Amino acid sequence: MSEYRAPTREMEFTLRSLAGFDEMAKACNYEDASPDVIAAILEEAAKFAGNEIAPLNRSGDETGVRLGEDRCVQTPDGFKEAYRQYIEGGWAGLQFDAEQGGQALPFSLAIPVQEMIHAANMAWGLCPLLSQGATEALSENAAEPLKQLLLPKMISGEWTGTMNLTEPQSGSDLATIRTQARPDGEHYRISGQKIFITWGEHDMAENIVHLVLARLPDAPAGVKGISLFAVPKFIPDASGNLGERNDCYALSLEHKMGIHASPTCVMSYGENGGALGYMVGQENQGLACMFTMMNNARLTVGLQGVAVSERALQLSRIYVAERIQGTAPGDCEPSPIVRHPDVRRMMMTMRALTEAGRGLAYSGCVAVDYAKHGQLDAEQRAYYQRRADLLTPLVKGWCTEIAQEVTSLAVQCHGGMGFMEETGVAQLYRDARILPIYEGTNGIQALDLIGRKTIRDRGLALKELMAEMRATAEEARTTAALDGRRIEAFEQSLQQLEEALQLVLDSSANEHFVGSVAFSFLMLTSIVTAGWLMLRAAVLTKAESGSADEDELLLNKRVMAHFFVDHILPRCANHLASVQAGEDSIMALSETVL
Amino acid sequence: MSEYRAPTREMEFTLRSLAGFDEMAKACNYEDASPDVIAAILEEAAKFAGNEIAPLNRSGDETGVRLGEDRCVQTPDGFKEAYRQYIEGGWAGLQFDAEQGGQALPFSLAIPVQEMIHAANMAWGLCPLLSQGATEALSENAAEPLKQLLLPKMISGEWTGTMNLTEPQSGSDLATIRTQARPDGEHYRISGQKIFITWGEHDMAENIVHLVLARLPDAPAGVKGISLFAVPKFIPDASGNLGERNDCYALSLEHKMGIHASPTCVMSYGENGGALGYMVGQENQGLACMFTMMNNARLTVGLQGVAVSERALQLSRIYVAERIQGTAPGDCEPSPIVRHPDVRRMMMTMRALTEAGRGLAYSGCVAVDYAKHGQLDAEQRAYYQRRADLLTPLVKGWCTEIAQEVTSLAVQCHGGMGFMEETGVAQLYRDARILPIYEGTNGIQALDLIGRKTIRDRGLALKELMAEMRATAEEARTTAALDGRRIEAFEQSLQQLEEALQLVLDSSANEHFVGSVAFSFLMLTSIVTAGWLMLRAAVLTKAESGSADEDELLLNKRVMAHFFVDHILPRCANHLASVQAGEDSIMALSETVL
Repeated sequence: MSEYRAPTREMEFTLRSLAGFDEMAKACNYEDASPDVIAAILEEAAKFAGNEIAPLNRSGDETGVRLGEDRCVQTPDGFKEAYRQYIEGGWAGLQFDAEQGGQALPFSLAIPVQEMIHAANMAWGLCPLLSQGATEALSENAAEPLKQLLLPKMISGEWTGTMNLTEPQSGSDLATIRTQARPDGEHYRISGQKIFITWGEHDMAENIVHLVLARLPDAPAGVKGISLFAVPKFIPDASGNLGERNDCYALSLEHKMGIHASPTCVMSYGENGGALGYMVGQENQGLACMFTMMNNARLTVGLQGVAVSERALQLSRIYVAERIQGTAPGDCEPSPIVRHPDVRRMMMTMRALTEAGRGLAYSGCVAVDYAKHGQLDAEQRAYYQRRADLLTPLVKGWCTEIAQEVTSLAVQCHGGMGFMEETGVAQLYRDARILPIYEGTNGIQALDLIGRKTIRDRGLALKELMAEMRATAEEARTTAALDGRRIEAFEQSLQQLEEALQLVLDSSANEHFVGSVAFSFLMLTSIVTAGWLMLRAAVLTKAESGSADEDELLLNKRVMAHFFVDHILPRCANHLASVQAGEDSIMALSETVL
Repeated sequence: MSEYRAPTREMEFTLRSLAGFDEMAKACNYEDASPDVIAAILEEAAKFAGNEIAPLNRSGDETGVRLGEDRCVQTPDGFKEAYRQYIEGGWAGLQFDAEQGGQALPFSLAIPVQEMIHAANMAWGLCPLLSQGATEALSENAAEPLKQLLLPKMISGEWTGTMNLTEPQSGSDLATIRTQARPDGEHYRISGQKIFITWGEHDMAENIVHLVLARLPDAPAGVKGISLFAVPKFIPDASGNLGERNDCYALSLEHKMGIHASPTCVMSYGENGGALGYMVGQENQGLACMFTMMNNARLTVGLQGVAVSERALQLSRIYVAERIQGTAPGDCEPSPIVRHPDVRRMMMTMRALTEAGRGLAYSGCVAVDYAKHGQLDAEQRAYYQRRADLLTPLVKGWCTEIAQEVTSLAVQCHGGMGFMEETGVAQLYRDARILPIYEGTNGIQALDLIGRKTIRDRGLALKELMAEMRATAEEARTTAALDGRRIEAFEQSLQQLEEALQLVLDSSANEHFVGSVAFSFLMLTSIVTAGWLMLRAAVLTKAESGSADEDELLLNKRVMAHFFVDHILPRCANHLASVQAGEDSIMALSETVL
């Protein structure tokens, strides 16, 4: 597989201008996050991802992971060394508290860095992804002594973290969790089995802190009886020195379609009397604590979709420029296939979706920073919290769906070679397929958007967003950033979204309707939002044009907006029609003959 | 992986009523193809596919194929034995001439049988698929003595066949083929290298007849200088006894994303002076000969898309009925996930696409039978030839695209388990990914439809088809087979197709436009045609309703038509919009910055 080059210029534009990082950093007094610092971080991260992580992607896929007799998981060659460099580079702590050793930079500044890592090697990147989620959950929910015990080593990256939710009978629905936590002195003894635990066991770090959902003996049934526990693989003493091996082990590894280098473990707790666990947050409040972690993990899973799309785009870009086949219109002899319009269509689709997805993901993360930061008043923070909450299912849902489309187009651009493992696009296609599933399937994201994020607030958050979209369309008109026809096409899509929203609000009591249209509503909302960001990019670059900063990238933003309006936005009509059709024919057949 | 049960009732309805097999058999005097015979064939084939081929699918994927020191390819356990049963069952010769040992049944009657085989085991099924294509090419193009030499053993299935087109520099564009054929007495000596040769070497049959495109020494450049040769692995004597090993070998096997049990070979011809080859057809007419084979292979590759979709649907049907998770609307306790509307949406989408795809594929094959058969007058045959030619890129293009969507939805319905290899859906997803690529990428199919099949005849074939569609809509109205709103929705899609056709005809001289919109035009044409077939199925079952033949399947056809109109047909608007937008933003960026 060819090397990965992080698109740092594009990332900077998307983060600082399009997603509004610069404004946010100012409003939230992130003085350290200056343009120079951003550029330096992206440049260093690009080197690390491109030179150290990317070369391990294909070999990692081929080797996979192995659970040894000693119940330890052996990672592919080079993984450990790369992880050591990750720690040494200070990458694990970018967005965490300075008190615990972090760099106290905005969460959203860590996002392009994470994108690079996932683009370079999604399987490897899952280890930091889960660790960061665990670190966040502890930062926000753990009592001070537990934080002091665990966080410094987690923020440095010396210890990694996991999320233990799923059990065989409990996937999307956590109400049926059975893992038990029994009080034992100040702490607890955990016993039960967890499945699909990503990086649940490995040899890259000296310790692993498992965050485990379990029930206390007297807990109420359902989701209100779940508590969260931190269960370290090795029990540390107060100074962080590793002591006894805890009673938690990987039982087996899954044989998966992709991300072969990421160990997906069946974890067993309490084979010998119970694994020592520390309670995180309050009794029976485990789900809420886990959601701090889940929400940001959902954003970063969406980001993985962008990352793997970018990698697929890069591989295709090289292939279509080099592969000579057929004579393109206007040529006299066999042409590089990039000159064939149908190949161009595929490349433009890949690029437009990837750029729009990046804009969406970064915007969601900037909203998280706004919402978290103490400098803003409560009303402003609530506004941004609504925005972050609204965008989270869009980022997770849409960016992972586009990753399917983009990686598939990448395979297609490669012709027969795309199906061969040697080009690397096949791996991206296989790896990407987990994205719409984990961290809440996209069906769950759709229910989250339509239920908690739309019906619950009677569309408030979405209406706020649509007002901004309308303003951007107006701005595009005033500045002539786009031609009138295309601005109208965007406004039409916006109207389609309004219509869908009204239908949803009108039928919110009909659960069959809500469930039937949820996915189409998610796609419709996402595409309009993505289209808005493409429009915004055109407006922003129009504003910057003529300045010294104008470059190819900025010019191209307008063409990409044209393409998005012409060829992606029309999908809205299709999704609106599905919402209008509702549950009727979806629920009509008896389930027994389905 | 659970067993495969061929949907024989659905296949019979689709073939006999929807695709018009019964009418065709009557018009073409296929007296042997009575309802009883059809039912008996499908029943026996269902047993063979379900009991003998399907159980080898997962083990074949795991084991894969191996090229030994002896340059022979070893197939997975059980493959050889299953192939012997295939020969003994007489399955290889259903549609071939009785003179050469075939059963002289219609081509389209072999189609449900082939669907079963591909659904059971796509990798295994590729061997017969290619053999049948080679058999056809020889039947239609070879001189009598060559036919007598090769066909009896190929029609019995004792020998298999391959297609050797691709070379490293020649994929979609065959003009650059370099393999040489040097006259040697009555025959030729072939030398060169071919890649991506499916079942190019294996241990299931005693001999393999390679059909190889090559150039004579004095041949003109480009596609007009290509001839077709039959190159047997072992050179037979006049009675078909195997003699000397020919100078053609598998050099290596590809490492692929899917169809692991199908050996994809790099073939080397003439390492020791040249492989003996017999010319098939006339000098420099090789491409035309190969196209006899290619066209039907394209239909059967489309059929593979239907087959793998059906298998994915069946696996999902079992899973969603058994998997308990979450509480569905109206339930009081955790429900089988089939009761969740979003899961129902996925299942209905899978089913609608699969049924529509089957209707399309079978219809294309019935048109081939009409066109081939001598009983009809020349005008009628030309009409059906146009229909077969028109439907071929739709069947290949659309049925392989829906296979991506259906297998992906199957993965999604399985949640986390879908990404694990043990459920079998992951394999279907990986296997299916080759379908839009081989036998002419779907980009090539799109160009075939828009160029040779539409612009060349100024839309004649498509207009003929649209006239039938209009008549069906009218019939649906008269018989009240569907409600008025849905009939209008279908007519609107038909109008969208007309509009797209007009745009294409108006801009047919603009190659950039044609190439840019070709894929959208293919999708639009296919969806409207598929929708028409769903409508037709509703009309047919309405006509049959009340009769003794009415059953669940027939009732459900109306619901499936509703669903297709409500949730699939709206995609037409999106594809029309892309055609309307044309090449502008697709071709706008310089290829160097793409």
